[in-house]
Amino acid sequence: MQQRNADRTRTRILEAATEEFAARGIAGARVSRIAEVAGCNKAMLYAYYGNKDALFDAVFTASVEAYLDEVGFDADDLPAYAGRVFDYFEAHPDRLRLSIWYRLERPEGEPLEAILAVNQSRLDELHRSQRRRVVPRQFTAVSLLSLIQAIATSWSSMNPEYGLDLPNVIVRRRAVVMAVQKILS
Amino acid sequence: MQQRNADRTRTRILEAATEEFAARGIAGARVSRIAEVAGCNKAMLYAYYGNKDALFDAVFTASVEAYLDEVGFDADDLPAYAGRVFDYFEAHPDRLRLSIWYRLERPEGEPLEAILAVNQSRLDELHRSQRRRVVPRQFTAVSLLSLIQAIATSWSSMNPEYGLDLPNVIVRRRAVVMAVQKILS
Repeated sequence: MQQRNADRTRTRILEAATEEFAARGIAGARVSRIAEVAGCNKAMLYAYYGNKDALFDAVFTASVEAYLDEVGFDADDLPAYAGRVFDYFEAHPDRLRLSIWYRLERPEGEPLEAILAVNQSRLDELHRSQRRRVVPRQFTAVSLLSLIQAIATSWSSMNPEYGLDLPNVIVRRRAVVMAVQKILS
Repeated sequence: MQQRNADRTRTRILEAATEEFAARGIAGARVSRIAEVAGCNKAMLYAYYGNKDALFDAVFTASVEAYLDEVGFDADDLPAYAGRVFDYFEAHPDRLRLSIWYRLERPEGEPLEAILAVNQSRLDELHRSQRRRVVPRQFTAVSLLSLIQAIATSWSSMNPEYGLDLPNVIVRRRAVVMAVQKILS
């Protein structure tokens, strides 16, 4: 029973922290606001997660794991993968914001284990597909990953002043992601 | 003489603010730190620029204007343009960081005049090139801009855990930007 309460508190902290970090980034997030939204006190939060940086690590690692579970990867069908990446970040803009904060605010931090593991498994899969000639070898595996990720999230790199009010904007944007097919041709 | 001093102070404030905002974003920036680096007091800074948000607007507008001056645009040769975008942000990573902070921290702010003007002039040029069939019409002008920008800065969308230690990393990355040619094929 006590264990169950503890688990619930941890989950509530993680949810509140995800929202706070996605909105304000690492430097901008306030631990007191996270504790308040989670309905616990700051001492409890520190006891569970250490400090604000460690709490961000927990949030970002959970977000990367959720991404892996839902989006998966398929080196043999990269356009379909790009479409899923697009759909995922349309459904979860907060998680895209978390990655962007991570890159901005931790440009030279200690690499996160979860990220290293994901990177390596994708590169291995891509190398296999390239050896089997399912994927062209004009670009290296890491370059391909970079291009696909950039194209799948290209709208997020546009200034907000650009055409947010177009009709069917999601459908139009998803069609653009299919530019990945041209990269592979 | 007094005017010249005032101009110098304004310039020093803008330089210090550019550095501070690029490193820490809008929420994370401290006006007191900017004033200290610029060698003036906070009251003077507020007298010249209003508040922190208005100071960011001045910094970002100056950064966009510098980009326009140095990179230009050429709807008739988009791969060359993409290469210049890449080179520019390799030389000025702080200015890329400013744009990313802007998108993250001002997702629904009042649009900046400078940005609106740039957007419109590029779209007009692209439309003209598309009408003249110099640029294919498979993608809309705004989609093309989005794809080119995403590809030219694709490395910045990768987690820092990815291959920063590769030999000739800049040359390799620049070659990848030429994927823009495939988009246009």
